[in-house]
Amino acid sequence: MRVVVPFDAATPKTRLEGTLTAPERATLARAMLADVVEAVREAGGHPEILSTASVPDAPAPLTQDDRTLTEAVNAVLAEASDPVAIVMADLGLATPASITRLFETAGDVVLAPGRGGGTNAIVVRDTDFRVDYHGISIRDHRRIAAEIGATMAEVDSARLSTDVDEPADLPDLLLRGEGRAQAWLAERFRLAVTDGRVAVRRRQEPALDS
Amino acid sequence: MRVVVPFDAATPKTRLEGTLTAPERATLARAMLADVVEAVREAGGHPEILSTASVPDAPAPLTQDDRTLTEAVNAVLAEASDPVAIVMADLGLATPASITRLFETAGDVVLAPGRGGGTNAIVVRDTDFRVDYHGISIRDHRRIAAEIGATMAEVDSARLSTDVDEPADLPDLLLRGEGRAQAWLAERFRLAVTDGRVAVRRRQEPALDS
Repeated sequence: MRVVVPFDAATPKTRLEGTLTAPERATLARAMLADVVEAVREAGGHPEILSTASVPDAPAPLTQDDRTLTEAVNAVLAEASDPVAIVMADLGLATPASITRLFETAGDVVLAPGRGGGTNAIVVRDTDFRVDYHGISIRDHRRIAAEIGATMAEVDSARLSTDVDEPADLPDLLLRGEGRAQAWLAERFRLAVTDGRVAVRRRQEPALDS
Repeated sequence: MRVVVPFDAATPKTRLEGTLTAPERATLARAMLADVVEAVREAGGHPEILSTASVPDAPAPLTQDDRTLTEAVNAVLAEASDPVAIVMADLGLATPASITRLFETAGDVVLAPGRGGGTNAIVVRDTDFRVDYHGISIRDHRRIAAEIGATMAEVDSARLSTDVDEPADLPDLLLRGEGRAQAWLAERFRLAVTDGRVAVRRRQEPALDS
């Protein structure tokens, strides 16, 4: 299956700015992109990166498109005659097995909901389907699929539901990631529990808690 | 399979106190308990509630135990000779299908990781296994399983990874829940997007945003 991996190369992972420096955020975003591309390939997909800016040494063929995510993806869908999957580049827990489950789920439109109303992956087998990533996109994607009369299914995967976007996502990347991004983070950060909440903390910081 | 559902009847869902009143928190917790018990039954399990306090009209046989969660669950495990599952009562997205996947996953110890380092469900098929819910429990449970030489597997389910615990979990309950808890919440709250983040807001509040 053809798999489009949208990637924000211009301002990656700004919500992590309280935890990671700008170069670190770029490195982590690139590591997750490489992990997702590899998981897609191992699941038998053909990844292509759809990026807002150029990416040196990109791990897959890259198309640059500086339009919004929704516009850029819909331009791909408008020209596609075969099934296309769209898999976000920040799924730091994605594995070949979870991507395989996505590909193997039957339905004209198969959605992998993200935490908090997003849509982390979609398989599009109906050429009338279009995306709308603005706002509560999972709700919009369900509605769009219903409007065009497409059969719809959702994949129940914690790995695909976790887009690494905020500091609260980093413990899950440390604990459950299996690729480059996890290794990169684990070299620099450790888990810490404060007031019953788990967070990541830089390794060189003094251990005031557990 | 015998399924123990631990339930905190004394001080349910205190982290939701900024969003829900105390009686509302108790009602939501009870609704999720009923949903989990029903999903367990529909998946072929035999639920029994392990509660810190009495629960009127409990939806399954109830044992009261005011020790810590770890102590109470380990007391059950110490006396069990057959497989036992432990499924948390606040899995507001749990469905018969996701619970069935848990039951059907092979392994002496099968873990369903919770977001942020918790362990939301466990199937214990090795009588030597004991739980430790304090701190980063998924890490401890992996270690304990390894120490006793048990085969281990993890279930990749967003539904089982979501314990409804904090305000940030409520949008997912609204968008993906399928039981009483979702219906109760949807009557009182709607989704709202502020600065690109999705949250729930009381229906009677003026709609200042989308």
